[in-house]
Amino acid sequence: MAATTKKLQPAARVHGQRQDVWTIVNEAAAASPKQPIVNMGQGFFGYNPPKFVLDAAKEVLDRVECNQYSPTKGRPRLRKAIADAYTPFWGRQLNPETEVTVTSGANEGMLSVFMAFIEPGDEVIVFEPFFDQYISNIEMAGGKIVYVPMHPPSDGAERTSSAGEWTVNFDELASAVTPRTKMIVINTPHNPVGKVFSKEELLKIADICVQNQIIILSDEVYDRLYYSPFTRIATLSPELEKLTITVGSAGKNFYATGWRVGWLIGPPELLQHVSAAHTRICYSSVSPLQEACAIGFEKAEKEGFWDESIKEMKGKLDRFNEIWKELDIPYSEPEGGYFVLANLSKVKLPADYPFPPHVASRPRDFKLSWFLIQELGVAAIPPTEFYTDANATIVEDYLRFAVCKPDDVLETAKERLRGLKKFIQ
Amino acid sequence: MAATTKKLQPAARVHGQRQDVWTIVNEAAAASPKQPIVNMGQGFFGYNPPKFVLDAAKEVLDRVECNQYSPTKGRPRLRKAIADAYTPFWGRQLNPETEVTVTSGANEGMLSVFMAFIEPGDEVIVFEPFFDQYISNIEMAGGKIVYVPMHPPSDGAERTSSAGEWTVNFDELASAVTPRTKMIVINTPHNPVGKVFSKEELLKIADICVQNQIIILSDEVYDRLYYSPFTRIATLSPELEKLTITVGSAGKNFYATGWRVGWLIGPPELLQHVSAAHTRICYSSVSPLQEACAIGFEKAEKEGFWDESIKEMKGKLDRFNEIWKELDIPYSEPEGGYFVLANLSKVKLPADYPFPPHVASRPRDFKLSWFLIQELGVAAIPPTEFYTDANATIVEDYLRFAVCKPDDVLETAKERLRGLKKFIQ
Repeated sequence: MAATTKKLQPAARVHGQRQDVWTIVNEAAAASPKQPIVNMGQGFFGYNPPKFVLDAAKEVLDRVECNQYSPTKGRPRLRKAIADAYTPFWGRQLNPETEVTVTSGANEGMLSVFMAFIEPGDEVIVFEPFFDQYISNIEMAGGKIVYVPMHPPSDGAERTSSAGEWTVNFDELASAVTPRTKMIVINTPHNPVGKVFSKEELLKIADICVQNQIIILSDEVYDRLYYSPFTRIATLSPELEKLTITVGSAGKNFYATGWRVGWLIGPPELLQHVSAAHTRICYSSVSPLQEACAIGFEKAEKEGFWDESIKEMKGKLDRFNEIWKELDIPYSEPEGGYFVLANLSKVKLPADYPFPPHVASRPRDFKLSWFLIQELGVAAIPPTEFYTDANATIVEDYLRFAVCKPDDVLETAKERLRGLKKFIQ
Repeated sequence: MAATTKKLQPAARVHGQRQDVWTIVNEAAAASPKQPIVNMGQGFFGYNPPKFVLDAAKEVLDRVECNQYSPTKGRPRLRKAIADAYTPFWGRQLNPETEVTVTSGANEGMLSVFMAFIEPGDEVIVFEPFFDQYISNIEMAGGKIVYVPMHPPSDGAERTSSAGEWTVNFDELASAVTPRTKMIVINTPHNPVGKVFSKEELLKIADICVQNQIIILSDEVYDRLYYSPFTRIATLSPELEKLTITVGSAGKNFYATGWRVGWLIGPPELLQHVSAAHTRICYSSVSPLQEACAIGFEKAEKEGFWDESIKEMKGKLDRFNEIWKELDIPYSEPEGGYFVLANLSKVKLPADYPFPPHVASRPRDFKLSWFLIQELGVAAIPPTEFYTDANATIVEDYLRFAVCKPDDVLETAKERLRGLKKFIQ
C-alpha cells in the first residue's frame, strides 16, 4: 500500500508549507471572544467601488459579448482605456495592442511575468519586507530568490518617522547581483512599509539594472494612493522602459479587490512572452468586470475620482494614526498606500500569557497580533511574515494595520486600541 | 550586445510555439470578404446567461463583501450551492469545506491540479482529440504527455453516425501506462467529438486507474448538456472517488464563458494540494460572479433551467444539422455538449485555391476552414489542432461547428453553407 499511496503524493512545489499569516490571523479572529472583530488585517476595502464603476458593471451585464470570453490579452476597450490613462505619465501615447495586457488580478499578472522569463536556477532579487505571493510565484517558475532587506530608521522604536526613512543599502543591493540575476521586483508605494521610492533611489536601482540587463518588475498596484511625490521607474529613461514591466490593479484603484482585474504595461518585446504565459495559465480574464473597469478609467478623471481617492485615504490614515499619538506609540507615516506600520515595542505582553504553540513559536509580532485579537478585538498583520527568518528581528515589534475601512470602523478600532494603555510602561 | 540581449530572453515554456488555431481562425474571419462572418468557431454563447443569474449578479454588486477578496477556496455560499447541487449525483452529502474548491474558470482549475501533482518527468495520459489548453498546462508543470487516440467510425466519411461510435482502444490505453503515469485526463461530454463516455467504457478506464493508482482528472464542463445517459466516473465506486477530481464550469452551465468561475469536486486528500496550488496561481477568484453563480445553483432546479438547457441546445443541434442532411454530408450526432463534427471529405477544394502559407502547410481541415471563411463567411475549427501530428490524418476531413448561437444565426449559417453544393461531387 505504501507504493500506491506514494503515487498520489503532491508535487514538491505545493508540499509542506507552514501555515500562512492570513490563515493564522483569520482563524484567531474567528476564535476571539471579542466579536465582532475589527479586521484591519487583510487589505480589502470596507466599502464599495464608486457608483460610476458599479453602475457600469451592472449595465454591461446586459450585453451578450460582455459575458463571453474576452481576448486573452484583454478586452480592447480596457486596453485602450489603460493606455490612455497612463499615457500622460509615460509622456507618449502607449499602444494598447502591444504595450498593455490584462491579467486575472495583479497576482496572476506577476506569475505570468515569472513564468515568461524565469528558468530553473535564474535569480530574482526581492526586497524584504515582500508581498508574500512573490515568493511562491517565483518558486513555481523554478527561480531562486535573493533577498535584500529594507531597514527601518534605527530609532523606529522611539519616534514616529516617515515611511520614506526605511532605506535600501545600495551596496547590499549591488552585491546581490550575479550573472544569474534575471529580474528584480520593486514595489512602490510599498506594502507594508508605506514608502514611496524617491526618484534618486529608483535611479540607483536603475543603474544596476541597466548595467546588468536585469528585468524590472515594478509592482505599482497602489499607484493612485500617494501622499508624497510618486515616480514610475519605467518613465525615467527609454533604456529603463525597455527593461520594465509595470503592474497595476483595478482592485486597488477602484476599491474592488474581488474583481480580479489587473494589468501589465511594458515593452512589446517583453509583454508578448508574458501574454503567452497568461494564455496558458488562465486563458482570459473576467469579461464584464474588465468592461466596467474600462468605463471606470474613461470616467475617473472627469469624476475627480483619483484626487478624491487620495484625499479620502489620507484622511483615513490621519484619523486612525491619532490613536498612536494618543498612546505615544511610534509609527511609520505612510507616503502611499493604505497600510500603517506601528512599532509596539512599548507594549509589555504578560509573561504568562497562554499563546497557542503555532503562535508561541513565531516572533514577537505574531504574539502581539494574537494578543490584540484576543484582548482588544482588533486584527492586524505581523510583518515578520514578509521577511526571511534571518532578517525577521528587524520588524518583530511592528504590526501592520489596513485603514481602507469605513470611518466608524476606524473609530471603533481606536476606542479598542485605547485598551493598550494598561500594557504600556 | 549579444550577451545582454540574451538576458532578456523568455523561458523555454513560452517560447517558439506555432500560431494557435484560435488566432488563425479569428484572423481569417477578420480578413474575410464575407462580413459579418457567422462565427461557429470558438464555443462562446451568442446569447446571455438566464435572467435569474444576471439579476443575481446585478444585485450582489451592491454588497460590499461581494466586491472584495473571496476566500482562496471560494465563497462559502458557492461551495455550499455546488455541494448541494452535486450531492444527488454522488448519492451522499458532499462537504463544501473539503470536497469543493472554486477556481478562476475550469482552465485555471485544471492547471492547479497539474501544478499540485505533476513533477517534471511524470506522465499524463491524454486522449486525442484533446482540449488544447491541457497540453500547455501539463507542460507548464513539467509533465510528459502520453497520447492515446480516439478513433472515429471507419465509415465516418460515408454515413452519419453517433458520436458514441468514436472509440478508445483499451489495449492502446493499457499499453500507455508506465510506472511514471501519474494522471489521466478524460473529457465527457467530449469536446470536440460530442461523445458521452458510456458506463462500460468508464469502468474499463477505471480498472486501469485503480490498478495503477492513477489520478483521474475528469473534465465534465459540459455536464448539463447531454442527450444520452451521462455517467460521472467519480460516482462509480468509493475507490474511484478517491482517485478522481471532477471539473465543472459556470461558464458552460450558465452561458457565461467570460465569467471565469469554475470548480473542482474531489476527495479532501487530493483537493487540499490543489487549493494550495490555486492560491499560488491567482490567490482567489472573482467575487461578485461567484456569488451570482451560487444564487444560480440555488435557483436553477426550481426554475427548470437544467431541463430547459438540454432541450434548447438539442433543438439547436437538430436545427443546424438539417443542413448536413440536405447536403448529404455525414456528421457525428452529438451525445452531449454543443459541438458538431461534420465530415467534409466530399467537398472538393479548387486545386489552384490561393491558401496563405501558414494554412497551406497545415492539414486539409485547415484549408477547409479557411475556404469556408473566405468563400461562405462561416467560421469553424479544424480539429487536427487537437491531435498530435502523427495522428492528425484521422480527422483531416472534419470541421467543428459550435451551435451555441441564436437560432437566426444558425439559419444564416445554413443558408451560407448551401453554397457548398457546387463544391460537392
